[in-house]
Amino acid sequence: MEHAAMKKMQISKAFTLLEPGPVVFITTNDGEKSNIMTISWTMVMDFTPIFAITTGPWNYSYAALTKSRECVIAIPTVDLIDQVVGVGTCSGADTDKFEKFGLTSVQGEYVRPPLIKECLANIECKVIDIVKKHNIVVLEGVAAYLDISRKEKRTLHAVGNGTFVVDGRKLDRRQMMRSKLPDGV
Amino acid sequence: MEHAAMKKMQISKAFTLLEPGPVVFITTNDGEKSNIMTISWTMVMDFTPIFAITTGPWNYSYAALTKSRECVIAIPTVDLIDQVVGVGTCSGADTDKFEKFGLTSVQGEYVRPPLIKECLANIECKVIDIVKKHNIVVLEGVAAYLDISRKEKRTLHAVGNGTFVVDGRKLDRRQMMRSKLPDGV
Repeated sequence: MEHAAMKKMQISKAFTLLEPGPVVFITTNDGEKSNIMTISWTMVMDFTPIFAITTGPWNYSYAALTKSRECVIAIPTVDLIDQVVGVGTCSGADTDKFEKFGLTSVQGEYVRPPLIKECLANIECKVIDIVKKHNIVVLEGVAAYLDISRKEKRTLHAVGNGTFVVDGRKLDRRQMMRSKLPDGV
Repeated sequence: MEHAAMKKMQISKAFTLLEPGPVVFITTNDGEKSNIMTISWTMVMDFTPIFAITTGPWNYSYAALTKSRECVIAIPTVDLIDQVVGVGTCSGADTDKFEKFGLTSVQGEYVRPPLIKECLANIECKVIDIVKKHNIVVLEGVAAYLDISRKEKRTLHAVGNGTFVVDGRKLDRRQMMRSKLPDGV
């Protein structure tokens, strides 16, 4: 890892990055160049972790994702809202989104698509299945990283109508939920 | 509808209730009685709206959901956090969760499982497919309702470790995103 503040986290805890439903970046690499898309249609499917994303041929990244069967899920925070919207409203077909939006590639360990240095967290993922009938791509997270130097930790939730909700306060119900939490989480 | 403040919303906007990733209740009916489960593993799949949820035989509600092929997605707000946790940590096998947690059934129009009166919003859904390999149940929303009398509108996002994030402030990027929004949203 080229980025000192990005620390590896236990892969068994990586689902907690996606479970709250933040809008995310997905990076891909088609063998020549890397690209980024913004996605809100994601779902945790297992603690191991397994994730689903809904995407299809209407996204330029889909070809690279399904050919290489690799991607990185990068989790932006509220200070990156204009990058989130910008990445989501132009196409990698004619735009180098890393350059255009001032985002920095960091090479991971297990997959070719890059981590994004400016993001709070990154998860290296392998495509383990594609449910074509429903445009669902099933991912397994193989390594996860958290930028421990970041003060801003509030993620964004896309409403889908052009507005976003920012993380507010946290409530702790760990004790009540103890029986339902996987070991070590 | 027995509940005056619960107003029908355009079904084409119902995906905006789930897109931000709130923890939700799912109600089911097995032909004799209704039940509720708490779920965080949901995903929007289309604007029409189509939703995915991840569930399986380990949830008591799964038998009723797959037999009746109907459910209601009910969206609680922060004031209902103890009901969210309570419903999620006991089983309908031996508990009437409506009674135990003071939640009120309201009969919808298209499906037998009830809406929950105390929730901010409710979506009547039909099961349109089950992807058994991945424990994904695919739902189509057929009617959606919003309680317009409610002052508390902040939803909850489960982190998956026993903590929850409450909705904070809203940011508007409608103008930048206009090209990507479906008509009328």
